[in-house]
Amino acid sequence: MDGKMKAIVKDRRGPGATMKEVPIPQIGYQDVLIEVKATSICGTDLHIYTWDEWSQSRVKPPYVFGHEFAGVVVEKGELVNNVEVGDHVSAETHIVCGHCPQCMTGQAHICANTEIIGVDRDGCFAEYVALPAENMWKNDHDLSFAEASVQEPFGNAVHTVLAGDVVGKTVAVIGCGPIGIMAVGVAKAAGAAQIIAFDLNDYRLDLAEKMGATRTVNSLHEDPLDIVRSLTNGQGVDVVCEMSGHPVAMDQGFKMVTNGGRVSILSLPVKPVSIDITNDIVFKGITVQGITGRKMYQTWQQVAGLLGSGQVDLKPMITHHFPLEDFEKGFQLMIEGTCGKVVLHP
Amino acid sequence: MDGKMKAIVKDRRGPGATMKEVPIPQIGYQDVLIEVKATSICGTDLHIYTWDEWSQSRVKPPYVFGHEFAGVVVEKGELVNNVEVGDHVSAETHIVCGHCPQCMTGQAHICANTEIIGVDRDGCFAEYVALPAENMWKNDHDLSFAEASVQEPFGNAVHTVLAGDVVGKTVAVIGCGPIGIMAVGVAKAAGAAQIIAFDLNDYRLDLAEKMGATRTVNSLHEDPLDIVRSLTNGQGVDVVCEMSGHPVAMDQGFKMVTNGGRVSILSLPVKPVSIDITNDIVFKGITVQGITGRKMYQTWQQVAGLLGSGQVDLKPMITHHFPLEDFEKGFQLMIEGTCGKVVLHP
Amino acid sequence: MDGKMKAIVKDRRGPGATMKEVPIPQIGYQDVLIEVKATSICGTDLHIYTWDEWSQSRVKPPYVFGHEFAGVVVEKGELVNNVEVGDHVSAETHIVCGHCPQCMTGQAHICANTEIIGVDRDGCFAEYVALPAENMWKNDHDLSFAEASVQEPFGNAVHTVLAGDVVGKTVAVIGCGPIGIMAVGVAKAAGAAQIIAFDLNDYRLDLAEKMGATRTVNSLHEDPLDIVRSLTNGQGVDVVCEMSGHPVAMDQGFKMVTNGGRVSILSLPVKPVSIDITNDIVFKGITVQGITGRKMYQTWQQVAGLLGSGQVDLKPMITHHFPLEDFEKGFQLMIEGTCGKVVLHP
Amino acid sequence: MDGKMKAIVKDRRGPGATMKEVPIPQIGYQDVLIEVKATSICGTDLHIYTWDEWSQSRVKPPYVFGHEFAGVVVEKGELVNNVEVGDHVSAETHIVCGHCPQCMTGQAHICANTEIIGVDRDGCFAEYVALPAENMWKNDHDLSFAEASVQEPFGNAVHTVLAGDVVGKTVAVIGCGPIGIMAVGVAKAAGAAQIIAFDLNDYRLDLAEKMGATRTVNSLHEDPLDIVRSLTNGQGVDVVCEMSGHPVAMDQGFKMVTNGGRVSILSLPVKPVSIDITNDIVFKGITVQGITGRKMYQTWQQVAGLLGSGQVDLKPMITHHFPLEDFEKGFQLMIEGTCGKVVLHP
Repeated sequence: MDGKMKAIVKDRRGPGATMKEVPIPQIGYQDVLIEVKATSICGTDLHIYTWDEWSQSRVKPPYVFGHEFAGVVVEKGELVNNVEVGDHVSAETHIVCGHCPQCMTGQAHICANTEIIGVDRDGCFAEYVALPAENMWKNDHDLSFAEASVQEPFGNAVHTVLAGDVVGKTVAVIGCGPIGIMAVGVAKAAGAAQIIAFDLNDYRLDLAEKMGATRTVNSLHEDPLDIVRSLTNGQGVDVVCEMSGHPVAMDQGFKMVTNGGRVSILSLPVKPVSIDITNDIVFKGITVQGITGRKMYQTWQQVAGLLGSGQVDLKPMITHHFPLEDFEKGFQLMIEGTCGKVVLHP
Repeated sequence: MDGKMKAIVKDRRGPGATMKEVPIPQIGYQDVLIEVKATSICGTDLHIYTWDEWSQSRVKPPYVFGHEFAGVVVEKGELVNNVEVGDHVSAETHIVCGHCPQCMTGQAHICANTEIIGVDRDGCFAEYVALPAENMWKNDHDLSFAEASVQEPFGNAVHTVLAGDVVGKTVAVIGCGPIGIMAVGVAKAAGAAQIIAFDLNDYRLDLAEKMGATRTVNSLHEDPLDIVRSLTNGQGVDVVCEMSGHPVAMDQGFKMVTNGGRVSILSLPVKPVSIDITNDIVFKGITVQGITGRKMYQTWQQVAGLLGSGQVDLKPMITHHFPLEDFEKGFQLMIEGTCGKVVLHP
Repeated sequence: MDGKMKAIVKDRRGPGATMKEVPIPQIGYQDVLIEVKATSICGTDLHIYTWDEWSQSRVKPPYVFGHEFAGVVVEKGELVNNVEVGDHVSAETHIVCGHCPQCMTGQAHICANTEIIGVDRDGCFAEYVALPAENMWKNDHDLSFAEASVQEPFGNAVHTVLAGDVVGKTVAVIGCGPIGIMAVGVAKAAGAAQIIAFDLNDYRLDLAEKMGATRTVNSLHEDPLDIVRSLTNGQGVDVVCEMSGHPVAMDQGFKMVTNGGRVSILSLPVKPVSIDITNDIVFKGITVQGITGRKMYQTWQQVAGLLGSGQVDLKPMITHHFPLEDFEKGFQLMIEGTCGKVVLHP
Repeated sequence: MDGKMKAIVKDRRGPGATMKEVPIPQIGYQDVLIEVKATSICGTDLHIYTWDEWSQSRVKPPYVFGHEFAGVVVEKGELVNNVEVGDHVSAETHIVCGHCPQCMTGQAHICANTEIIGVDRDGCFAEYVALPAENMWKNDHDLSFAEASVQEPFGNAVHTVLAGDVVGKTVAVIGCGPIGIMAVGVAKAAGAAQIIAFDLNDYRLDLAEKMGATRTVNSLHEDPLDIVRSLTNGQGVDVVCEMSGHPVAMDQGFKMVTNGGRVSILSLPVKPVSIDITNDIVFKGITVQGITGRKMYQTWQQVAGLLGSGQVDLKPMITHHFPLEDFEKGFQLMIEGTCGKVVLHP
């Protein structure tokens, strides 16, 4: 398809971004062109927008950023046989090599040669995006574009919570950004008996409660370890989903987990963290898991099953909608922390 | 404790049973005496009551039968240190040897030397029952005695459904006796996307729907395989919980499961079943599991977590309550199939 | 590449096959052309050669059959980036659709849309074979072509034995055709304590012993269940690898497995088998697995690791080598059962 | 049994220990008295002997220390039914409560109420030891007392290596004290393709090679990460068994493991360790496991299977034997690091 489109371009090596007219991208034999109907803002996009240290070392302006979206296929390459024009789709945002040992053994989400949409190549804060067909996930036409656009981060939550069993267990979610809030909903849907949510921000703790937390804890005002002891008969929680990245919270996570428990870490602490391996890992016999991306595509199937059945309803945590043009309002809300998920509509 | 108590005694090698006065049982060093507050009727009790072939070969009248109950500890042996007088308890009904290879490796529920309460030794259709302390499961005082009494069969349902993952998946429950109905509730609580319940009895299908089935199928009036195909985009179900024991239904189970799926069998078909191993097991790459009893005591922890949190509410399927004396009314209802779970109160 | 090549053509709807000159196959964008250096005969090839019922219903002469091989890439399509000309390769013989639920979740080996090399399309009993590049497995140059050619069936053995843990356990291999013999070697390498091999053919039992069986049993002359009882202190075996397809042997497998054990079935019984589900599956709490193909590509990595390290040495069971022209000698040996693996060299 | 016996008594709050005459211990209803035939020295015993910080805070002299042994049952309490007088036995050294959530769910090895033989109560550096019968593991009479005595630490090695799959994989063993050396043997027996052993002590690296290491690395003279890269085609190892407790070695372990790999930590670093969670755990998607004790009693079954079958031969690493009286020679060798396992014979 030829022509121009609106896109949010990260056009400078500094804070901010600009709405511009750019060419509609061209597709290859194995690609599809998608008309973007809804695109949500991720914490990663915020890092790029505010131009933090990580962004400075990783991204190469000018380019179109954004990676969470839902849209409709409008064109496909001649070798594409897994999607059709008219299909509703979202994308797995990890474009992987396909032939490293990880890709060859069902662990493509940790392929060392991964290229990320909207980080390493043009993304979806635009009217159109061109992507490899093999990264398409077909959405049910009954699923709204807004909800479909947040499946990618919801997949992070699903991947983290369901990296082990939670039925009848006590789950702690540490850090209630959007993924933490969704993790609460996943734990609830998957049968957890107690879901204790921790954060410093009451707005987000309220959203966590709406998504099913049985207890929310503002760690500024209550002692997390005391609360856990009293709620678990002194035993500690069975599962910790660490989504804060903060060393103090992380340490609390290791202290609150019961012997034999699981600590699944999705967060990215900016510095090394000091861990009492002997007492907090070895003697307790716990398992610590690093979680990144989504299993390709088991996680997406779980996502579809949970959303399609209504076992998880994401609407309470999609708090704001803006036209694409008003992206700066969305970023501002995220800086302030007074939002759940923000969706932009091109 | 000395004295007499009321008990339902299987006193003949033929149909029926009799309410009698018998001595309160004595306890040993490692036993407890429990005052029974509620005791529910199992299909196994019905077999013993109606004196079917299996009963004739297994049980040795006269003895007190019944094995599902909740009560209060009133006396304990001098070496008992895991429960106290006054504790609310139910019992794991498998009394195991403790030192066979299965017992030594976390599989005590399939100990080849198992003795079953109410089958191989006196049971709980009585005012008191004496049991080894190590078989006690402590109940929360908030849990009603009636609900606590059905934890043992609920444990069968939990064990079957959770013998693998169900989150976001399609689960078929074939056979909606009380355990099947409870299996529906477990699948719902554990995050299944679709739960399709099959039976020939509309009363029980109604209960299955109340417990969360997304579709009920009376296999007399609808074709199970057609329904499954239409509900799963032709793929079949991910998980079959076989609780009917009927060879036709079992064959449908093998046909309706998707490639790579799981068939978990709790039922006990009375004769060998002919299976197309090549097409229904090998080429489909499925897993078939025999399920018996409850994992000791992981299943009980899951039971407690699901009931205590309200993730599963058993009240809709406990349809009838009688005083112990009216046990024959309960058995009659079970023969007619117009009940969920029937609870007797001594 | 243009030109002619020698190939064994299944050229009739009846027993036998013919060596012919046929065109060297052409490749597409995503294919490779391989010069075949060694190709081994599978039981499936024998079925096609002797024209059994299954073959009559499945294959469509005339075509080139054969699917186990090792060779060298001599040409590649323009979109191929996972192999290079000169690479030593073998092929995963299941060509899968890539976008069904199984393919999307790491279970491509049970894709319902599978096309099999040498069965549903031209195979490798030829000087050259053209295949999709994504089915290539790169071989170490140190691995002989003959050993590399049997990796595919060795993968079946690996998949079956390692479908669960065997370390320190007792493993029964029922049926010592080539895959059974290789399964013995896998169990030995993976740490099994006892490996009991069953067959009716002493030649093959001798090969099983060479591959590491701790006890071989000719079921014509000894009672399998008696032997198992005496070798396992009456407990039964932990794992049964069923590779015979014979209903009597299969029944013995179900009887000899211990409570909680595993029965992994790779064989393809020609008729339905009657199974005592209540006593042999449910009360014993066992797991039955249907095994087909090789996990793509976890099994291939295990294969490469076991062969490359010398943990398994396949040389003792590759008993015969012939030039491609003498294929009929190979088929004759297989009919007689006086061979391990037969390798043809084009 | 009345009378006196020789025992090595930790009789002071300072370095050293004394051989003394003490009363033969009395047994209770559920205990056994064992005549000790062989007892090996553990690193923990060395800590107690040299009176390090940990010992000062944990043990309460005077008492008999030692916990690794093999012996013969000479007396049993009246409720004991799992062992008989004359049985050859060793002991699981964790005496657990039996009714905490961990004990109730197959994780007794991490019971928070554990009492350890020879640490928290009298041990086996003596002619006799009294222990709960339920901690007995029956040994085959064919197994020598010396080899049987080291089953407990061998169990640590088994538990660590087999906390995940190793077949066909590359395993790094970091730290070649006796348990590390045994871990090499376990990895070899369980089918690892490469086993790379790291230490600073050439004597121990030689023992690791005898037990099956495919490559030994003295980290003083070679760069561990360079070696790993060259041996794994740049991919890193699949499994790290961390047995050094040294922060530098531990960091190397996290750096050398491949994406999706496993780091199983048995060692007890004396101080918190700084870990780059973002890059070394999360982005790599690895699993970190704390390992302590032995699974009760799955690990013991694996131990028995590996030793009884000859899959692992411990004789090369049992380098020294002394009469109990000469215990100080044994401790001296351990201080010097010029030994594998040292066995004392009462």
